[in-house]
Amino acid sequence: MNLDLRNYSVRTDLAVESKELAETAYGGPVPGLNEQVEEQDGIKITRLDITDEAASRRIGKMLGHYITIEVPGLRSQDSDLQEKVSAAFAKEFGAFLSKIGIAEGAKVLIVGLGNWNVTPDALGPLVVENVLVTRHFFELAPDQVSPGYREVSAVAPGVLGVTGIESSEVVQGIVDRTKPDLIIAIDALAARSLERVNTTVQIADIGIHPGSGIGNKRRGLTQEILGVPCIAIGVPTVCYASTIVNNVFDLMKRHFDEETGQEQGQTKQILGLMTELSENERLGLVKEVLQPLGHDLIVTPKEIDEFIEDIANVIASGLNLALHEAVNPDNVATYTH
Amino acid sequence: MNLDLRNYSVRTDLAVESKELAETAYGGPVPGLNEQVEEQDGIKITRLDITDEAASRRIGKMLGHYITIEVPGLRSQDSDLQEKVSAAFAKEFGAFLSKIGIAEGAKVLIVGLGNWNVTPDALGPLVVENVLVTRHFFELAPDQVSPGYREVSAVAPGVLGVTGIESSEVVQGIVDRTKPDLIIAIDALAARSLERVNTTVQIADIGIHPGSGIGNKRRGLTQEILGVPCIAIGVPTVCYASTIVNNVFDLMKRHFDEETGQEQGQTKQILGLMTELSENERLGLVKEVLQPLGHDLIVTPKEIDEFIEDIANVIASGLNLALHEAVNPDNVATYTH
Amino acid sequence: MNLDLRNYSVRTDLAVESKELAETAYGGPVPGLNEQVEEQDGIKITRLDITDEAASRRIGKMLGHYITIEVPGLRSQDSDLQEKVSAAFAKEFGAFLSKIGIAEGAKVLIVGLGNWNVTPDALGPLVVENVLVTRHFFELAPDQVSPGYREVSAVAPGVLGVTGIESSEVVQGIVDRTKPDLIIAIDALAARSLERVNTTVQIADIGIHPGSGIGNKRRGLTQEILGVPCIAIGVPTVCYASTIVNNVFDLMKRHFDEETGQEQGQTKQILGLMTELSENERLGLVKEVLQPLGHDLIVTPKEIDEFIEDIANVIASGLNLALHEAVNPDNVATYTH
Amino acid sequence: MNLDLRNYSVRTDLAVESKELAETAYGGPVPGLNEQVEEQDGIKITRLDITDEAASRRIGKMLGHYITIEVPGLRSQDSDLQEKVSAAFAKEFGAFLSKIGIAEGAKVLIVGLGNWNVTPDALGPLVVENVLVTRHFFELAPDQVSPGYREVSAVAPGVLGVTGIESSEVVQGIVDRTKPDLIIAIDALAARSLERVNTTVQIADIGIHPGSGIGNKRRGLTQEILGVPCIAIGVPTVCYASTIVNNVFDLMKRHFDEETGQEQGQTKQILGLMTELSENERLGLVKEVLQPLGHDLIVTPKEIDEFIEDIANVIASGLNLALHEAVNPDNVATYTH
Repeated sequence: MNLDLRNYSVRTDLAVESKELAETAYGGPVPGLNEQVEEQDGIKITRLDITDEAASRRIGKMLGHYITIEVPGLRSQDSDLQEKVSAAFAKEFGAFLSKIGIAEGAKVLIVGLGNWNVTPDALGPLVVENVLVTRHFFELAPDQVSPGYREVSAVAPGVLGVTGIESSEVVQGIVDRTKPDLIIAIDALAARSLERVNTTVQIADIGIHPGSGIGNKRRGLTQEILGVPCIAIGVPTVCYASTIVNNVFDLMKRHFDEETGQEQGQTKQILGLMTELSENERLGLVKEVLQPLGHDLIVTPKEIDEFIEDIANVIASGLNLALHEAVNPDNVATYTH
Repeated sequence: MNLDLRNYSVRTDLAVESKELAETAYGGPVPGLNEQVEEQDGIKITRLDITDEAASRRIGKMLGHYITIEVPGLRSQDSDLQEKVSAAFAKEFGAFLSKIGIAEGAKVLIVGLGNWNVTPDALGPLVVENVLVTRHFFELAPDQVSPGYREVSAVAPGVLGVTGIESSEVVQGIVDRTKPDLIIAIDALAARSLERVNTTVQIADIGIHPGSGIGNKRRGLTQEILGVPCIAIGVPTVCYASTIVNNVFDLMKRHFDEETGQEQGQTKQILGLMTELSENERLGLVKEVLQPLGHDLIVTPKEIDEFIEDIANVIASGLNLALHEAVNPDNVATYTH
Repeated sequence: MNLDLRNYSVRTDLAVESKELAETAYGGPVPGLNEQVEEQDGIKITRLDITDEAASRRIGKMLGHYITIEVPGLRSQDSDLQEKVSAAFAKEFGAFLSKIGIAEGAKVLIVGLGNWNVTPDALGPLVVENVLVTRHFFELAPDQVSPGYREVSAVAPGVLGVTGIESSEVVQGIVDRTKPDLIIAIDALAARSLERVNTTVQIADIGIHPGSGIGNKRRGLTQEILGVPCIAIGVPTVCYASTIVNNVFDLMKRHFDEETGQEQGQTKQILGLMTELSENERLGLVKEVLQPLGHDLIVTPKEIDEFIEDIANVIASGLNLALHEAVNPDNVATYTH
Repeated sequence: MNLDLRNYSVRTDLAVESKELAETAYGGPVPGLNEQVEEQDGIKITRLDITDEAASRRIGKMLGHYITIEVPGLRSQDSDLQEKVSAAFAKEFGAFLSKIGIAEGAKVLIVGLGNWNVTPDALGPLVVENVLVTRHFFELAPDQVSPGYREVSAVAPGVLGVTGIESSEVVQGIVDRTKPDLIIAIDALAARSLERVNTTVQIADIGIHPGSGIGNKRRGLTQEILGVPCIAIGVPTVCYASTIVNNVFDLMKRHFDEETGQEQGQTKQILGLMTELSENERLGLVKEVLQPLGHDLIVTPKEIDEFIEDIANVIASGLNLALHEAVNPDNVATYTH
């Protein structure tokens, strides 16, 4: 019998999940992290700075600043809550721009990654559709643009399988010609835990890296490649079947630990040697079992159609509020479709 | 610690899955079943007759005739294979009509259950859109209809949350007025095992029962209610998160049993007491753990958009071939959209 | 040369257009009509009662009450204006219900006629999607429904070419089973003049008649057929090419009459004998010229996709406001999608 | 009264229409044109070379080579005919590439202009979706690409109002980075005559010029701008209301001329001084009358949804056939969606 598992990595694009995993693995807080958590009206905001190379390696996430907005209630399609999340997003995003040193009025190019025709991957293109663009007015008649607006453009570069060109090349071509000061890239992500799917927004100043998001990218969208800062906004909309299983196993472990007061050996008796594996080893095991059957599927909640529209709207409204002083909670709805 | 689980039922709309579960539970073939399996070109056809009350109770499925067409390759979006599946479906469906005593040329009403706007639930309405309807020609000028066609009509009654009326009432009203000889109801289903999602079609002469399919129905579509025979065609397009976990646990158990040659206790050592629970007990446990967190989500594969179009087309083409002599493999493509 | 035209009828589903035509033809106000016009904030409301058989024949419209809401600004996609139109619609519709003697709290079935997949014909199904339905709550637990709501259900019966069944038969079957007190049927219409396309809503207590609307109906939806009052709500979303031409010719005639002060013969010199034809004769001529070429097309403005969504939302919101006391301008947006 | 009209230009993107207009205006064949017409199976192909500056000025079209494929039957949604048109398109397109000197195996970038969300403007993006792209295979593993394929990529750059960036800039950025040898730009056009809407495909080696197509472009896609040859493929999907009227007036004139044997003055008696205006003057008059009322709308046939899907498929299949030897009539359907 073989339990000598390779070190499978738990697939997550969320820094908060990576941090949790690292803490479990190393048995306590990881040094070199700066974290601040705030919660109000069902909206939990975590600001995590990874400022230390060692911490970055441990967590498996790039050096940088990460904001996570978690709103379990987002799944219930409550339009009032959505408005609150837009406002909270806008506030965080504005502060984030200052924190990472983006100049007031910096020209922005919003990049909506992903595929129109695959609902859980359509987040980026949908945000592009709903965001207020102004660059053409600045180009055509700069002195006639009302105050309170900045220069914003937006593109959905398509996916490699449809275009034959990597998103990153398309974007680089556009950046070369339109010279924005900042890229904001929107992408659908994969989460490790099912409960974060469709309820979490992550903002990070690390750009987009190969292998992140749902689609496969061979090159990223980063300041190194593009020459301008690149902020990534992501929402997990899918989960691997294997991570669901792993995640549930973890929940069961905690459940039995609680029920048995972590009494010596009880949980192990119920769940077996599995309890002694690290999360990564366990995930490797699940994958080993699933893949011969060809079904480590990527799955998404049944209600994805409506959710993706809602969250795209939340993000587009939040960006409109954060980027243009002239947009405020009273008129924001008239700027999206 | 509490392992005294209520008898949770494993949620599946597929007779072949229920049968497997029953066989595992009762340790061997269930008496009172008549099963015939055939496999060709990657298409596996199972004809299962439940003719005995006791068997029906054991399996938890109605007395009746069930055909299951399993095509793992359907996920690869191969248009040649899709044509073969249409043809195989048409052949089985034609034979099924004879077997259950439907008269040649019986007037058919096709009912597409489900919700347009929820992709994994849109199978029924999409089939309705693509099926060849002829009833209006028969009504208008019966003697001008070319030979080789029968009278077919098709409706998508909508879902309770959108219409405020149960599908079954809408259909009953239409049946009262249009007097078909046979109802064919198309519905998206939930499967127990992830590998059957989007790869399996079930045909059964039992109609639609409350609680089957994705949407919630309080009344069914059955011969008792409608006064005419009702054949249900279903495709599993979703899975509960809990059944994925349960299903994987099962796979792991088999995996370790194989690896260890079922050597005394080895698998149990690895997987713990979980191995001694019945499938239903285990599922109950998983649900117990998941539900407090509110995420026994119903999930669907990420590629559902394209899949649902493909399978709706396979079924619509299959029905067109089976119901009208004048439709044949050479012209069938011109009848769907 | 042949000017001996059959009496072609000018194709319009709008009573206000029929009335205008009749006035032109008969040279002055048509007796037996009761008309009231009101205009505010760019919204013009015309209440026309046809109470006299002779007037009905002259106008070519059924005896009944007609409300026309004309809002030229609707084409500019201004969301504030849309809200105002919803409110105006709701107010008129509520008053209309009282006027024609519908009891407070009457149970309503909303019928969305037309075809999902033909954008200018999708008005009805889109309204059904966005209207608040409550009937299932009343059925399930009548004493738990909050006050301020009435029993509303909604169906989109599909079109003959897709279902093989006339909408009217589908609706009749549903009416037989669900026993509403009132039918409200929503349909896309054809207008005579291009400027009314997508800017006008008509409410009438005459039901739907064969040949009205965009699709072809052989049977209507009327109180005679259904046994309950039937109010039709229509929006012109298309125009015949021939009526565009005819309409422009009319505009030119007026234009030259104005420019020349209707000086003897000037307009005729410019536009020829065409000026001496009645509108119907002229239309006949245009059709005679167009039809051999097979292109008396039905056309719709290029922007129809966005418009149809907007106007469906206006009507659904208006109905929600008018039918449920508990819905008010502050919460109405949360009831549509 | 004022008939002193400015010289309005008749809005058409089709060279065959411009040529017809020029011939009418100048009373006979325009010198400096080379035209070849061929008709088979309801498909009319016109190859027009404008090789002479004077001719170019008279017609108001750029020097270049134009192919027009006219298929009145395309409106009837006959899938056999569509296949024939794809094949004819592929044959013409292949010959066109040779004629204008494009090297065998030239690397192609297909550009789908227009707006996803405006049905009559969605032609370009839909073709991009359905065309076979291969560039990523050549980039990744050039020696593993089967023979019979060339390097093709495809992008839909979006429209100015959605992106804030001109299509031409987006494309130029992509061309700079991906270095194709040839651009093929697909665009929806405006026709002068209603009968050409949705029935005509134009291929021209002149690129895309500002003001052509449905959307407004301030910069074009031409060899001068992009540095590589640019072939434009266009299909008229809309018409101005004013050109419909003008077009019908023209038909009426011909109709009466025929009926009266062009007998002195008869047509003029019927149609007045309008007959003495040039087409452009008449169009000016119609616009003068229409515009104050704000309704020189751009219209499209009611059936545009289905048509646009069909024609996008015809063009994508035609391009797949023409660009890759390995694609042939037997397998072409498997390459589009």
